[in-house]
Amino acid sequence: MASQPFAGVLVPVLTPFTPAGEPDAGRFVAFCRFLLDQGADGLAVFGTTSEANSMAGAERMALLDRLVASGIPAAKLMPGAGACSITEAAQLIRHALGHGCAGVLMLPPFYYKGMSDDGVYDFVAAVIDRVGSAALRMYLYHIPPQTQIPFTLDLVGRLIKAYPNTVVGLKDSSGDWNNTKALCEAYAGSGFAIFPGSEVFLLDGLRAGGVGCITASGNVNVPGIRKVYENWKTPDADRLQAEITLVRKTIQAYPMVPALKRIVAHFHHDPDWAAVRPPMTRLSDAQSAALLADLAKIGFSLGEARREAAE
Amino acid sequence: MASQPFAGVLVPVLTPFTPAGEPDAGRFVAFCRFLLDQGADGLAVFGTTSEANSMAGAERMALLDRLVASGIPAAKLMPGAGACSITEAAQLIRHALGHGCAGVLMLPPFYYKGMSDDGVYDFVAAVIDRVGSAALRMYLYHIPPQTQIPFTLDLVGRLIKAYPNTVVGLKDSSGDWNNTKALCEAYAGSGFAIFPGSEVFLLDGLRAGGVGCITASGNVNVPGIRKVYENWKTPDADRLQAEITLVRKTIQAYPMVPALKRIVAHFHHDPDWAAVRPPMTRLSDAQSAALLADLAKIGFSLGEARREAAE
Repeated sequence: MASQPFAGVLVPVLTPFTPAGEPDAGRFVAFCRFLLDQGADGLAVFGTTSEANSMAGAERMALLDRLVASGIPAAKLMPGAGACSITEAAQLIRHALGHGCAGVLMLPPFYYKGMSDDGVYDFVAAVIDRVGSAALRMYLYHIPPQTQIPFTLDLVGRLIKAYPNTVVGLKDSSGDWNNTKALCEAYAGSGFAIFPGSEVFLLDGLRAGGVGCITASGNVNVPGIRKVYENWKTPDADRLQAEITLVRKTIQAYPMVPALKRIVAHFHHDPDWAAVRPPMTRLSDAQSAALLADLAKIGFSLGEARREAAE
Repeated sequence: MASQPFAGVLVPVLTPFTPAGEPDAGRFVAFCRFLLDQGADGLAVFGTTSEANSMAGAERMALLDRLVASGIPAAKLMPGAGACSITEAAQLIRHALGHGCAGVLMLPPFYYKGMSDDGVYDFVAAVIDRVGSAALRMYLYHIPPQTQIPFTLDLVGRLIKAYPNTVVGLKDSSGDWNNTKALCEAYAGSGFAIFPGSEVFLLDGLRAGGVGCITASGNVNVPGIRKVYENWKTPDADRLQAEITLVRKTIQAYPMVPALKRIVAHFHHDPDWAAVRPPMTRLSDAQSAALLADLAKIGFSLGEARREAAE
């Protein structure tokens, strides 16, 4: 198994859009810098939470160009390479490697349903072969609620075996702890990096051999989640985990991406941040008010989090 | 409602790949010409059956360039504009209109699940607005088994009302006759063109006010399906329908796209035609033999079909 560029708390960064619906590179760069300043260990830009699949490949690549040009270290970046074609996935990965990104997050092809493990294996293998770079560190992205196409336990093992220096980790957004646990039991021992896709499973994951988490709510709660990561072997760990679980469950009672954007808009005093790209829709005014009231009720404040991070 | 450029038997054309996995423009052009010679009323290139979603937008556009350059009439073409981003969908549509294509087939965005009708409406509206052409004739593509995101009966009505000269028809690949029937009852009367996504529903669809079908098995059975279309008001209609339904059901007992490609490879004496792009996989040798035996048993021959078409 190759060296591991990532561990800890990674954030699938929200993508801001202008009022005209275009990706907003300026706000994006500033927000990425804010997340790193807060203590994020890495930025999984262009993931599901990023609405990456509502952007053309060219739009994602232009944002990455801007991010790297602005001085965000490529060693902290794990761009998503989600695409339904081998051609586009390979193009996105080559572009990321050209910038020196430390890894990429790899969705399975997600249009055709009912595809076999053999077919998904062939897809990933063809992408790796087409990229043809020893520098590639690929993290598989298992998110069946969106893709309907899984990276099964068996398929993951086949890919690790065939590409031990390339297929080095996985983000598990199945929401199924038993799946994460089975992956850890099967592959963590050999150095394969397993990240639950929600901080709800961060502590359990670390105890089972996982290495952190890649989580949407990192966009608004890096400091809280980092505390669990830093203190997971202490007697305080379960209490800290309960705190971040409560924040997460409060947010995910609403449509996740619009809710996170609404929270950022509120705490960063920047209403334009609430914009989403279709097919997503913004929270209604009533939902927004209820969400912010729910967060106030549990004492959550992004402002406080920022102050803590600066201490 | 605007004039209707399409009716009858449309084929979502299979896309041939070279042994190296690249789209094979030469074979593609030849095959499109063959289908038109057989009597196809239109070619819905870059649909689900075309493995379009396993090709980058640039690959699809390059194939369309070759097709039009070869003399295939753009008036017969309804390219698919399947994409998850407004940006890419609009780009594909502008390219098709630039070639004078008579219409486009429009998938909903298909990565994010559980999106609302409002969100899908916003997506389609944004694409139409971005394209900004009075020449656009858009056919909605309802295929929930793949997209999981439907064009609901209500949403279709909203889009027709907002864009009566643009949203002029729909392909229903739900496989649910009750849905096709409801669409016909609600919208066929005003001139909205409804195509079932399988010839199994061709006769029922015509009787309910539909205008033809857009069907995968058209790749291997245009003459048979055309007979139903030409004779649907005659006493022979039900017998002819039963014949094509039998062919369809025989083929779809196997994975559809690999099976169709295997049939083309066999009857066109061109083994390379059997190649698919991952995540699809070819039929095994045993499946291939069984499929061809099943077709022989019911007396199906693409060779005969070609001779009939030439009579």
